[in-house]
Amino acid sequence: MSPVFNFSAGPAVLPREVLLEVQKEMLDWHGSGMSVMEMSHRGREFMHIAAEAEEDLRAIMGIPKNYKVLFLQGGATTQFAMVPMNLLRGRGGIDFVDTGHWSKLAMKEARKFADTVRVAASSEDRGYTYVPAEANWQIDPKAAYLHYTSNETLGGVEFPFVPNTGEVPLVCDMSSNFLSRPVDVSRFGLIYGGAQKNIGPAGLTIVIVREDLLGQVAPGTPTMFDYKIQAEGDSMYNTPPTFAIYVAGLVFKWVQRQGGLKAIEQRNIEKAAMLYESVDTSNGFYTCPVEKPFRSRMNVPFKLADENLDESFIKEASARNLLQIKGHRVTGGMRASIYNAMPLEGVKALTGFMQDFAKHHG
Amino acid sequence: MSPVFNFSAGPAVLPREVLLEVQKEMLDWHGSGMSVMEMSHRGREFMHIAAEAEEDLRAIMGIPKNYKVLFLQGGATTQFAMVPMNLLRGRGGIDFVDTGHWSKLAMKEARKFADTVRVAASSEDRGYTYVPAEANWQIDPKAAYLHYTSNETLGGVEFPFVPNTGEVPLVCDMSSNFLSRPVDVSRFGLIYGGAQKNIGPAGLTIVIVREDLLGQVAPGTPTMFDYKIQAEGDSMYNTPPTFAIYVAGLVFKWVQRQGGLKAIEQRNIEKAAMLYESVDTSNGFYTCPVEKPFRSRMNVPFKLADENLDESFIKEASARNLLQIKGHRVTGGMRASIYNAMPLEGVKALTGFMQDFAKHHG
Repeated sequence: MSPVFNFSAGPAVLPREVLLEVQKEMLDWHGSGMSVMEMSHRGREFMHIAAEAEEDLRAIMGIPKNYKVLFLQGGATTQFAMVPMNLLRGRGGIDFVDTGHWSKLAMKEARKFADTVRVAASSEDRGYTYVPAEANWQIDPKAAYLHYTSNETLGGVEFPFVPNTGEVPLVCDMSSNFLSRPVDVSRFGLIYGGAQKNIGPAGLTIVIVREDLLGQVAPGTPTMFDYKIQAEGDSMYNTPPTFAIYVAGLVFKWVQRQGGLKAIEQRNIEKAAMLYESVDTSNGFYTCPVEKPFRSRMNVPFKLADENLDESFIKEASARNLLQIKGHRVTGGMRASIYNAMPLEGVKALTGFMQDFAKHHG
Repeated sequence: MSPVFNFSAGPAVLPREVLLEVQKEMLDWHGSGMSVMEMSHRGREFMHIAAEAEEDLRAIMGIPKNYKVLFLQGGATTQFAMVPMNLLRGRGGIDFVDTGHWSKLAMKEARKFADTVRVAASSEDRGYTYVPAEANWQIDPKAAYLHYTSNETLGGVEFPFVPNTGEVPLVCDMSSNFLSRPVDVSRFGLIYGGAQKNIGPAGLTIVIVREDLLGQVAPGTPTMFDYKIQAEGDSMYNTPPTFAIYVAGLVFKWVQRQGGLKAIEQRNIEKAAMLYESVDTSNGFYTCPVEKPFRSRMNVPFKLADENLDESFIKEASARNLLQIKGHRVTGGMRASIYNAMPLEGVKALTGFMQDFAKHHG
């Protein structure tokens, strides 16, 4: 069988090397005679696995010492509630940058907890195909924090910059471009991300938070939602998602072997350029709605000029082992997600197919 | 190497057959060319895996049609908040049966959400070594529900009966004896359990809830904490812990191959009897504080008469590949957890060692 390339938006492709390690160690981790799934989270073996995962992530991202790294559960959607419950700190309200589907959901959930939720900037006017120019953002200096979504997985819109919010803490949903490029963590108050794109299996959420923001949780917040309690318990206030943490740890080692985030970024730039080039040179057979400076390196949405060909496109792609490229039900069309673990060969196979398909049906 | 037997209280031993299946399918689930970890939760393959897991669990436990089965995240500790947020329904308060560590934690968390939290019965008077006689329980007929912990993992106290609470809905934390014996689900309003004992990997929580209790969530409840929304989304309101659901599904098939819950229960009775017998016939070298009718079949706590031997006991056990038998830091002593997946041979190896150790040091 020729190799399968999986363009799922998440859960998504993982590095083959990592899957081989997981397979090899499945019944016996490092001579312990136990699967990682069977280990007490308080035992010597798993404590080592978790500590090493955190250490490696800190090294890869250059996370400063005054930031806590939390391994939680519930996905980004849980963070949509957890962030305001912890970070409102009795302040006036929250500022949001609205760049599409996921920003909107985060905003909607925040309204449950904050009296004032303001749209500091929005790209709704042009159908969420760009990132609003920072100069025009209306940031309230009294806001508890400003929230943005660094990569809109559905719309394929990615921030090419880290916003400057002055004294207002910056909060970022980095779920779908986490670890895809270097990032200066010291510019953020809090970063969160579900694992199931660039980190590991679904069921793990990573939160990186500046210590001084902790400890002012809203009354009535569930204990499990209190970052401070989670931080004090080293993310083991209760049993953490041990196996997902283990796999994430292996992915972190893989990132290091690739040369770290700079090298990863170079590969991601190359892969994305190849795919957008294929769209842009198709004489309109394929189109991408996103304005060029804001095109995501992770999720590449495109449409066929003739929608009637969508089904054939998906079917023929699938026959060539190019899987899960159907767009989200909200947007329609196609979406190829090309996270860190997607090899260049996968993108080549896809662009080759796209050219063949256009030739045949154009 | 002789086989390893892992007596961890959770995460805990899994059936070897299941681990072998997971290993075999790690890079290619059923010819899909993908690991289960890499599959979109909305794709055909994973939808099939999740539906089959639910179907099998329903068959094993005989779950009536008017109950929803939810695959959630966050462990039992998350349920300590989620249950009152959903089930208080504006009623007066909650009744608790206090049988030790986990009941107390559930009660403490409930106080965040309920004006009135009553202790309907407690075994604190004799150090949590028994289950209070049902005839003496003080149940408030207006209570929103009564909560109990069917097996206290730390104390090793297990309910030999299902309480009769009349019109008051019965809520059970079944984390540590879930799937260990047949249970009449129709007697419950809600059952919950973390997966990491008898079900699968940590990071999955199962909730079984009677439909008529849904839909009256407290204001300010995070969307992810709303059972009704989770039920309407088939536990896929956001990305579920896909891999953990897959492994749990394989465990359900394994339970069926063992002959279902009746057969599982017989094996559990046999294993527990053998271990308690070994304690009770040690002439006081080993003691178990729990009163006989309430001794857990899952978690067997015992102490050495001479505490100074604790360290040697753990060390020598470990040298014989009998792992993770150290008691919880709260209780001290030893604790051997013998969940479904612990083979009889493991219990034989442990009792054999205990007799040798007593002979040598007695």
